[in-house]
Amino acid sequence: MQDFLSLDKQALLAKKEALQQEYRRFQARGLNLNMARGKPGFDQTDLSVGLLDTVSSSTDYKAADGTDCRNYGVLEGLPELRALFGQVLGVDASQVFVGGNSSLAMMFDTISCMMSHGVGGCEPWSKQSGIKFLCPVPGYDRHFAITEYFGIEMIPVHTSVSGPDMDEVEALVSSDEKIKGIWCVPKYSNPLGITYSDETVRRFAALRPAAKDFRIIWDNAYCIHDISDTPDHLLNLAEECEKTGNQDIYIQFCSTSKITFPGAGVAALATSPLNMAAIKRQYSFQTIGFDKINQLRHVRFFKDYDGLLRHMQLHKAILKPKFEAVLQTLEQHLGGSGIVSWTKPNGGYFISVNVLSGCAKRVVALCKEAGVTLTEAGATYPLGQDPNDSNIRLAPTFPPVAEVLQAMELFCICVQLAAVEKLLSSNG
Amino acid sequence: MQDFLSLDKQALLAKKEALQQEYRRFQARGLNLNMARGKPGFDQTDLSVGLLDTVSSSTDYKAADGTDCRNYGVLEGLPELRALFGQVLGVDASQVFVGGNSSLAMMFDTISCMMSHGVGGCEPWSKQSGIKFLCPVPGYDRHFAITEYFGIEMIPVHTSVSGPDMDEVEALVSSDEKIKGIWCVPKYSNPLGITYSDETVRRFAALRPAAKDFRIIWDNAYCIHDISDTPDHLLNLAEECEKTGNQDIYIQFCSTSKITFPGAGVAALATSPLNMAAIKRQYSFQTIGFDKINQLRHVRFFKDYDGLLRHMQLHKAILKPKFEAVLQTLEQHLGGSGIVSWTKPNGGYFISVNVLSGCAKRVVALCKEAGVTLTEAGATYPLGQDPNDSNIRLAPTFPPVAEVLQAMELFCICVQLAAVEKLLSSNG
Repeated sequence: MQDFLSLDKQALLAKKEALQQEYRRFQARGLNLNMARGKPGFDQTDLSVGLLDTVSSSTDYKAADGTDCRNYGVLEGLPELRALFGQVLGVDASQVFVGGNSSLAMMFDTISCMMSHGVGGCEPWSKQSGIKFLCPVPGYDRHFAITEYFGIEMIPVHTSVSGPDMDEVEALVSSDEKIKGIWCVPKYSNPLGITYSDETVRRFAALRPAAKDFRIIWDNAYCIHDISDTPDHLLNLAEECEKTGNQDIYIQFCSTSKITFPGAGVAALATSPLNMAAIKRQYSFQTIGFDKINQLRHVRFFKDYDGLLRHMQLHKAILKPKFEAVLQTLEQHLGGSGIVSWTKPNGGYFISVNVLSGCAKRVVALCKEAGVTLTEAGATYPLGQDPNDSNIRLAPTFPPVAEVLQAMELFCICVQLAAVEKLLSSNG
Repeated sequence: MQDFLSLDKQALLAKKEALQQEYRRFQARGLNLNMARGKPGFDQTDLSVGLLDTVSSSTDYKAADGTDCRNYGVLEGLPELRALFGQVLGVDASQVFVGGNSSLAMMFDTISCMMSHGVGGCEPWSKQSGIKFLCPVPGYDRHFAITEYFGIEMIPVHTSVSGPDMDEVEALVSSDEKIKGIWCVPKYSNPLGITYSDETVRRFAALRPAAKDFRIIWDNAYCIHDISDTPDHLLNLAEECEKTGNQDIYIQFCSTSKITFPGAGVAALATSPLNMAAIKRQYSFQTIGFDKINQLRHVRFFKDYDGLLRHMQLHKAILKPKFEAVLQTLEQHLGGSGIVSWTKPNGGYFISVNVLSGCAKRVVALCKEAGVTLTEAGATYPLGQDPNDSNIRLAPTFPPVAEVLQAMELFCICVQLAAVEKLLSSNG
C-alpha cells in the first residue's frame, strides 16, 4: 500500500471518497460486534466444563489432607492448589495465598491494605499525603482505576518492547519517596503483548526506592497464556529478588479467569513473608475463608502443572487463528500505509495499535457507529487520557474468527478514514 | 438442685471434692470436642450436595435472561437470585446486590468503603478523627474485629431479650456525631439467640443520629434459621424505615453460609439507592464480578423462596435435637443452682450462658484442659474484654448430638467447679 503521508490533497480526497463508500457499506450491514474486553470466547469456556463435574453429589469433598471443603477454614487456600500456583508463579507453595475468584480483587484488597494500614512498619499510605504510583503506558485500565479510586496520583512511564523505561523508573523511585508502587503486567502485557526483558526484570529486582513501602504490583495475568509456537520467556522476579536481597519489593498475582472461567475461577498472590503477614492479617478480618469447593474443582481438573499446561495448549489452538486474523488483516489493509503501527504478541489477550496522533478517539467512534465496539480510546492511560490520542487496544478473543475478520476489515477502513481526515485538515 | 449461694464453707468444700472427681473422670476420657464456632455439621452440608449437580458439563450455563454464567459481567448478581434474596430480606430485588461467598466480606468492604470514601456526601470516616461504633453486647466477635481493624472506638451497649437498650442507643447517637454505626444481628442474635422486638425495630427506624453518615449494620445472618416450632418474627426494618423516611440509615446483609455451604455459598446485601451507589461503585473498582456459576447453582437448587424455606426445615430437624441436648443438660445439671443463667433461642446458632462474674475464663480453661474447646471467654465483647468475665457462647451445631451431650456434661461440671472455687475464695 502506498504511504498515506506521501499523498497530495487530491489523492487524499479521492481516497476519502472511496473509504466513505466502503464505510457506508459496512454501516448498512448492521453489525453488532464487540472487541472491547479481554474476554475468553465460549469456545474457550467450553474447554473447562469438565471442571464442574469434579465435585458433585457423587464425589467426596476432601482435599489431600482430609479437609472437607464444604465448611469454613483454611484461609490461605488448599495446600495442593497453593503448590500448583507456586509452580505457575515460580515460587514455593509456602509463599502462595489462594483467594477467591478475582486477582483484581486481591490487588484492590492489597492496595486498600496499604492505604489503611501500610506495610513494613511505615505509615499507612492514606496518612502520607500526595502519594504516587508509576503507571507504565499503555497499560491496563482496571489497574489505573484502582489507584484512581484511592486518590493516588499516577505517573505514566513509557513502555518499549523490553518493558517500562527502566532509566525513568529508577530515577523516579530512587528520588521520590512519595512513589509507592508500580503497576506491571510483565508477560504479554496488557495491551502491548510484550514481555519484560531479562534486563528489565533484573533492574526491577535491583531497585532501591526512596520509599521503604514501595511495592511492585506484578500482575502475572498471562504467565502461561502463549499463543505462538515461539513463546516469550519471563525471568523469575522472585528469584532475582532473592539474589538482590529485595524480597519484599514485589507482590505477584495471577488467576485462572482466562484458564477456566472468568468470574468463576480462582486467584492467587505470592509474596515475601513480610508482605504476606500484612495481607493475610487483613484477610483474617475480611473473611472466614474463600471458596474451597471451587479450589478443589481446580485441583482435580488439572491434576498437576503438566495438566494445566496441556489445558493451555487447547486455549492456544483457539486463540491463535483469532490473533492471526487480526494481524493478517492489519498487514493486508494497512501495511506500508505509514499511518499505523501494531504489536505482534506471542501470547496474552491483546494487540495494541497506534494510529496517527489525534485519531484514536475518531477511529473508535467510527467503528462504534458501524456496529463494532472497541475498548474506549484513552482507556490504556491513567484517567483515560492518552496524551497523543493514538493508542487503541484490540481484544480479539471473544468473537469467532469470522467476526474478528469483519470487525478488523471495518477497523482498517476507519483507521484510514480518520487518517485521511486528519491529513486533509492539517493540509488545511 | 440446691442453690450454691446458700451453701456454707463445708458444703462447698465437699461439693468441690466431688466435682473434682467428676472432672478427673472426664479428663481421663481424652475427649477432643469443639463447640467454639457457629459451624454447620456435615449432616447439614450433606443436605446441599445436590446443589453441586445443578451446573455440570451436561447442563447449560444460562441464567433466566440468557446470560452465560461462565463469563465476566453482571456485577450486581443474577436477577433471579437478587429476587430470591429480596424475598429473604423483605425488600424489592432492585435493592439487592448479590456478591461472593461471604457476607462478612461484604460488611468489611462496606466499612472499608465508608473509611476510605465516606457516604452521603460526608467526609470519609478515616478523615474524621475519633469515630466510634456501638456494639450491642454480648455480640459477634468478627463484627467487633472489623471495627477494631479500622481503629474505630467501640462502645458496648447492653442487650436484653428485646434487643439493644434503645434508650442508650438513642441517647448516644443523637448526641454524638462521632458515632457512625451500630452492629446488629437482629434475629436470633449471636450469641444471645434473641430477636429484636417490634418496638426495638421501630425505634431503630426512627433514630435521628447526630451523624448524617451513621449506619445500622443489620446482619440478618439467621433470618430464616428457625429451630423451634414457635419461631420468632422480626419486623421488617426496611419497611419501617420507609415509613419514617429513614431509608438510608441501614444496610442489611445475609448469606447462604448456613443454608448451603460455609465458604461456598453466596452472600447479599440490601440497602437504599444512596448507600448502594457508594458500595456498588467500590465493587466496580474492586472486581469485574462475582461467581455467577455458584449463583446459578443456588437459584437452580432452591428454585424459589418456598423451596428455600423447605430446605431450612431440613436444617431445623438436625439442629433442634442439638439445641435440646444443650438446654436439657443445662436444666438437669444446673437448674436452680443460682450460679448460671442461659438463653433459650428459637433459632440461630448459639446459646449464651452467663456464669458467676469472674468465672467465664476459668470455665473455658477447665473445659479446654478436659478436651472440649469453647469460644474464648470474652470473645463476645469488643477487644475480647468481658468486664464481668461472665459470658460464654455455646455453639452446638457442629458436633453430633452424642458429642454435644458429653461436652455439655463436662461444661456443667466446670461451671459448678469454677463457681465453688469462686465462692470459697470470696468466703476466704
